[in-house]
Amino acid sequence: MCKIVFIGSGNVATHLSLEMQKQGMDIVQIYSRNENNASILASRLKTEYVCNVESIIQNADLYIVAIVDNAVENIAARLKIKHGIVVHTAGSVPMQIFEGKFEKYGVFYPLQTFSKEISPDFENIPLCIEANSVETENFILEIAKKISRNVSCISSDQRKIVHLAAVFACNFSNYMYHLSYSLLEKYEIDFKILKPLITETAAKVQNNIPKEMQTGPASRNDFKTIENHIDSLKELPELQEIYKFLTNKIQKL
Amino acid sequence: MCKIVFIGSGNVATHLSLEMQKQGMDIVQIYSRNENNASILASRLKTEYVCNVESIIQNADLYIVAIVDNAVENIAARLKIKHGIVVHTAGSVPMQIFEGKFEKYGVFYPLQTFSKEISPDFENIPLCIEANSVETENFILEIAKKISRNVSCISSDQRKIVHLAAVFACNFSNYMYHLSYSLLEKYEIDFKILKPLITETAAKVQNNIPKEMQTGPASRNDFKTIENHIDSLKELPELQEIYKFLTNKIQKL
Repeated sequence: MCKIVFIGSGNVATHLSLEMQKQGMDIVQIYSRNENNASILASRLKTEYVCNVESIIQNADLYIVAIVDNAVENIAARLKIKHGIVVHTAGSVPMQIFEGKFEKYGVFYPLQTFSKEISPDFENIPLCIEANSVETENFILEIAKKISRNVSCISSDQRKIVHLAAVFACNFSNYMYHLSYSLLEKYEIDFKILKPLITETAAKVQNNIPKEMQTGPASRNDFKTIENHIDSLKELPELQEIYKFLTNKIQKL
Repeated sequence: MCKIVFIGSGNVATHLSLEMQKQGMDIVQIYSRNENNASILASRLKTEYVCNVESIIQNADLYIVAIVDNAVENIAARLKIKHGIVVHTAGSVPMQIFEGKFEKYGVFYPLQTFSKEISPDFENIPLCIEANSVETENFILEIAKKISRNVSCISSDQRKIVHLAAVFACNFSNYMYHLSYSLLEKYEIDFKILKPLITETAAKVQNNIPKEMQTGPASRNDFKTIENHIDSLKELPELQEIYKFLTNKIQKL
């Protein structure tokens, strides 16, 4: 059975380790600086945890570094893994960050937004895989295919673009939901009225090109409605600024 | 049986009239300036169509003005409806636009994004209702409840805000999808890799406050990733500008 150590105890580490255990893999240890998170995750997995890198066991098959993107380089410099494969889960970090530090390494990037409370449906999550040798790639691929039906081998350069595109599609669209929420909140209107629209907007681009699905006053150059909207936002200068900025961009489409 | 005339033959008129017919209502006539669209819709409904306002029949119970928001005022000035209720479906147009023009009038606003090709699931579409008398409101309400389980009576002022919030939640988030699509397209990466993420991002706000679901480099102030992203977009100045603008806004959250 594949023995796995998780480096990290945040959302990605939590959901991924629980899923891997569910699929029969052996999570032998959790390492995290944050003892509280580490102990919570270890107890959910019924495994052990450590809080210093020197105590990480050496006989695992796979070490999964699942921490925030900008901390991967730092932890890699401190990890002493002689055998076993080391992968990270960071969308924006090139694989080459592990070069010269480990013998066998790669990337295991789940393209999804994880929250503490919501259990993701791994079967449909795209897993982006990369490795420094064919042998290592095959090993990671086999594991990836046990938890998702949507696995692809992509290079660090491609992954960088995918991660950036995800910022637009996920982080920025969620910010748009937030803006609509804050507008309705100011006028004491329940956000639930918008929920079917949000679902449908996301559903439409599953089978259509987003540009062809663009609707609204900006895309039809309805200046009168745009002017009314800008006027309605006069007490909310931040929303007004964003409205003007994006309306202008959409009109150029 | 309720006799209905549709003024308009676009996406809203098409889907709404088909749904109303399905629910047993009698669509007796379609009026549209656009003869081609009018004839297509009339033939789908197996009803008649006319292209001049003088030919609109006078004995219908309900006239539904389903045309673009900025054309409602103009058509209202030309419609001679002596009996029957006149409603429009425009989110941004106040009900008062009909004042003095008709005896019984109101609003029937389906809060959803409609495309020609996709048949919407009306049962879950919020219908925002308004009328100039209790009697008329009750009449419209009864019809609305036949096609949706999600009907609310809201004032023109509230509807204006809801419509504006929908621009953020739908039009602007779809534009974010478009930006991610165009980025992937430039690097020849299939947009399908982002689809599960888009679905999950919309699903998360069905049961959570959007602000609490905000993830990504901007929300965690990951300056290094942000800098890398900005650098990756140097050949796409438009995307770079939007990235910087929205990242800056999210950081202020």
